[in-house]
Amino acid sequence: MRVGLLQINPVVGDIAGNAARVRAAYARAVALGADLCLTPELVLTGYPARDLLLYEGFAAAARAEAGALAERVFTEYPEGPALVLGCPELNTSGQGKRLFNSALWCENGLVRVSVRKSLLPTYDVFDEARYFEPGPPGASEIVEYRGRKLALTICEDLWNDKDYWPHRLYPVDPVEAAAAAGAEALLNLSASPFSLRKQMLRQDMLSAICKKRGLPLAYCNQVGGNDELVFDGRSAVFGADGTLLARAEGFAEEVLVAELFGRAPQELPADDLSAPAETWRALVLGTRDYLAKCGFKKALLGLSGGIDSAVVAAVAAAAMGPENVCCVLMPSPWSSRGSVDDSLALARNLGVKTRTIPIEPLMRGFEAALADSFAELAPGKGPDITEENIQSRIRGNLLMALSNKTGAMLLTTGNKSELAVGYCTIYGDMSGGFAVISDLPKTQVYALARHINVLHVSPAGGPNGPIPQAIIDKAPSAELRPDQKDEDSLPPYDVLDAILALHVEKEKTAAEIAAAGYDAATVARVCRLVKGAEFKRRQAAPGIKIAWRSFGSGWRMPLAAAPLP
Amino acid sequence: MRVGLLQINPVVGDIAGNAARVRAAYARAVALGADLCLTPELVLTGYPARDLLLYEGFAAAARAEAGALAERVFTEYPEGPALVLGCPELNTSGQGKRLFNSALWCENGLVRVSVRKSLLPTYDVFDEARYFEPGPPGASEIVEYRGRKLALTICEDLWNDKDYWPHRLYPVDPVEAAAAAGAEALLNLSASPFSLRKQMLRQDMLSAICKKRGLPLAYCNQVGGNDELVFDGRSAVFGADGTLLARAEGFAEEVLVAELFGRAPQELPADDLSAPAETWRALVLGTRDYLAKCGFKKALLGLSGGIDSAVVAAVAAAAMGPENVCCVLMPSPWSSRGSVDDSLALARNLGVKTRTIPIEPLMRGFEAALADSFAELAPGKGPDITEENIQSRIRGNLLMALSNKTGAMLLTTGNKSELAVGYCTIYGDMSGGFAVISDLPKTQVYALARHINVLHVSPAGGPNGPIPQAIIDKAPSAELRPDQKDEDSLPPYDVLDAILALHVEKEKTAAEIAAAGYDAATVARVCRLVKGAEFKRRQAAPGIKIAWRSFGSGWRMPLAAAPLP
Repeated sequence: MRVGLLQINPVVGDIAGNAARVRAAYARAVALGADLCLTPELVLTGYPARDLLLYEGFAAAARAEAGALAERVFTEYPEGPALVLGCPELNTSGQGKRLFNSALWCENGLVRVSVRKSLLPTYDVFDEARYFEPGPPGASEIVEYRGRKLALTICEDLWNDKDYWPHRLYPVDPVEAAAAAGAEALLNLSASPFSLRKQMLRQDMLSAICKKRGLPLAYCNQVGGNDELVFDGRSAVFGADGTLLARAEGFAEEVLVAELFGRAPQELPADDLSAPAETWRALVLGTRDYLAKCGFKKALLGLSGGIDSAVVAAVAAAAMGPENVCCVLMPSPWSSRGSVDDSLALARNLGVKTRTIPIEPLMRGFEAALADSFAELAPGKGPDITEENIQSRIRGNLLMALSNKTGAMLLTTGNKSELAVGYCTIYGDMSGGFAVISDLPKTQVYALARHINVLHVSPAGGPNGPIPQAIIDKAPSAELRPDQKDEDSLPPYDVLDAILALHVEKEKTAAEIAAAGYDAATVARVCRLVKGAEFKRRQAAPGIKIAWRSFGSGWRMPLAAAPLP
Repeated sequence: MRVGLLQINPVVGDIAGNAARVRAAYARAVALGADLCLTPELVLTGYPARDLLLYEGFAAAARAEAGALAERVFTEYPEGPALVLGCPELNTSGQGKRLFNSALWCENGLVRVSVRKSLLPTYDVFDEARYFEPGPPGASEIVEYRGRKLALTICEDLWNDKDYWPHRLYPVDPVEAAAAAGAEALLNLSASPFSLRKQMLRQDMLSAICKKRGLPLAYCNQVGGNDELVFDGRSAVFGADGTLLARAEGFAEEVLVAELFGRAPQELPADDLSAPAETWRALVLGTRDYLAKCGFKKALLGLSGGIDSAVVAAVAAAAMGPENVCCVLMPSPWSSRGSVDDSLALARNLGVKTRTIPIEPLMRGFEAALADSFAELAPGKGPDITEENIQSRIRGNLLMALSNKTGAMLLTTGNKSELAVGYCTIYGDMSGGFAVISDLPKTQVYALARHINVLHVSPAGGPNGPIPQAIIDKAPSAELRPDQKDEDSLPPYDVLDAILALHVEKEKTAAEIAAAGYDAATVARVCRLVKGAEFKRRQAAPGIKIAWRSFGSGWRMPLAAAPLP
């Protein structure tokens, strides 16, 4: 039985468009000889559709489109393969959440069976218990098709094996139920987002389940960027002994057709799982899709001469085409000559446009406007962080004005280390529609910059790659006052990032981190800064999830709260 | 049995401080002759502690504090009443979410019994399935105490009666289980947030359950503002026939002691449930607590001469004291003389300070800085929304500079209608730490303004109240270009607000709203504007929840998405 995995890139909410994408991919799978086709989870709404799912009219429209699609593909291919379609269904039982997260088995122009997801992830960025009533983890998932008993599962349904996980989240295991009911193969519709090291885990876990149960698996994952989440695809077929038999591309659409009950692996596409390589692909796809799905063709950013904006410019050029990227230099009296020169060199290497707008006259204007008020309301107070923020907000205003006037989306360039400790200005450098590297700690920004130079992103990049070495080598500085360096205010980035990884990503308290051997005063200071910057993050632009745990929809902290113990 | 309801205002995350608050309230209840004391739900962590609960060190610290508190009150009052304490507990079973949401029965210096919440709300602003494993809805909740069988429940556990709710969310009913197990009374620890009309529902529902089961109820609710949520308290005792026997104050701390098995109602405090009265109390408490719990003593806002900023100024003056509020006028060439005069009159009436900073020089500065770029990047394009946004962002920068320099929190003044359709400038008038009226539709802002004038908030307000009639009477205008009026760009506010109520609060699609009799083109335009403003709301300051459904943590929309059908 040749199974077709329709690894497509749906647009959230675009029910008719997603149906058309499924139809085109189905036709391709038919041409490739598929006997059975799978889509990703909830493909007709796109994943995650979030609170669009609370509109019953929306869910009903998706279900109606599924019926029409089943009929349509049957009309076009009367002998065609069955299609397993991810789609929400209304729960009309009068009890529980209003929807089911379903896999619709479409055959002969009809929805023959509907199977409902049992295990609903409700952690990190996932909110499925908000929308869906779970289905029973019983024998109802088995569909007989062309002489085979196929067990239909949806994403998380595979992620609860009691031997694989030391701590299970759910009391039931749909795979165990399917095996007990005599399944001969597992089918799975997924929308499993990318994060670093996730693919290794996923492949290992899926392989272990196949081997344990002696069942082959066809796994179809969504691909594409939807807001902060990038789905990496990599749909796959595993043999009953756990061998990876076939795998689709990462970070790209593909229709993969492979034998479900086969033994010989197909040739696998190359797949560099190193952190910088994964990060680069995720950022480029995530940026391209966010802008395109929001209706933007052009991007805009401020170039400071530092490494963060250099990396974002390289991502933007790769995602949108360099001709669609405009970089703006806004030097102040505190900007070094090198910053301007390095920025211009970078822009030349990438082939992107630049504009230069000095901000000193505007700085003087704000000084004059505020002098009396400052003297009266804060007598005797000299220049402080206020004046630094004013500069940053002048730049934010200029960039947003260019964005408004030209229709280019402003990209923000802050990294995760800054966002964690609040080393950034709200309404200043935090201004923008999309925060490309806001989930990359500074140390990973450096690694990515070196990777970009090795990749030779721009053909004009020359033998050393597009990012000038001076940008990589210089000490990080916000250049908001004379001779300022980041390390005047923050611990060295290798120390800072190590502490942040424990506090932000591993949920360790300051006491626990200090007990692990870090300087207690430094740890206390970093944790205090993280707490104090919560109000900035609340108003931050969405960014691309790279880490296991990211600021964004999976980070839900109180604001008016005491610090952690 | 006299039950003491310790209706206190915890600070989220302040475990030691909350324990001290419980201890003081317990002492007061002892003095009033209580035989048994109840706290609100999760009182030691405050509600909602959100992702602080993912730190196991935090939950463990709360549980340790509970043990210490049990011992401490026993030492202080060896004959004192039992204390039922809301506190998270670690789930050490090796399966499921890491915590339980527990009620700890403390007696004789020990935690005698722990009862776990069964029904975990996971809708709107609630995310309990993210943190907690449910407890069994069985007989384990019954505690025998001084000859009575008392059923211990936590908040949502009471909210699933199959006769009361046409659509139930959960398959089980802990109240039914308690009644079947022979309970003689219901005890409930709650953290039930305020929204308009909620108290009527709550009182009606609780009364109906008591009557149906023939059981009295002691219900202890949290009070105070925690970020966007205001908890209104109103803890109560209901008799076995459903009679309301006693009720604590709304929007204030109180220790209420009342007979649980009594029949004669105590005198009830006055409680005006009209929408403007409820709104006023919620906004004042919510603003006061947000600023205080964030460590701010002073507030700052821009006064435009319009009704929104006038109402926010009145709330701020009542919440913080007028001496701690500074209002800033930032007239442009498009500001009317009346706007300035009306603002100054309002400030005089409220007794708040003002500063005036004209922005024309800064507008000219940005014009000059951007002229070449605009000419080159957008040739032939005349003034548009860009120039309006620049003005608004100049004001945002000035206000944030004053906030940074003086340590006063900037309050934003936008209303829900504007935020819904995007009639506001991101990084401009949206700048600020707290959005006081961002959940009030414009039509409700008018109603609140009239209520404020009737209340005579300021002793200096004079016979007509603090808000000048001219501010209430003038046609709404952003005054960002000559002779601009809101209704040039938007439908009349009564129409707009009616459509928004259906689309935003009742989850109706454009087609459904048009079918209800509204002009289809207007509805389509409004829904399109709501969709298009999602990116602004994502970066908006937190505001106070007033409506059944609010923008904020209970509004989780995708950004890069197609419009609803």
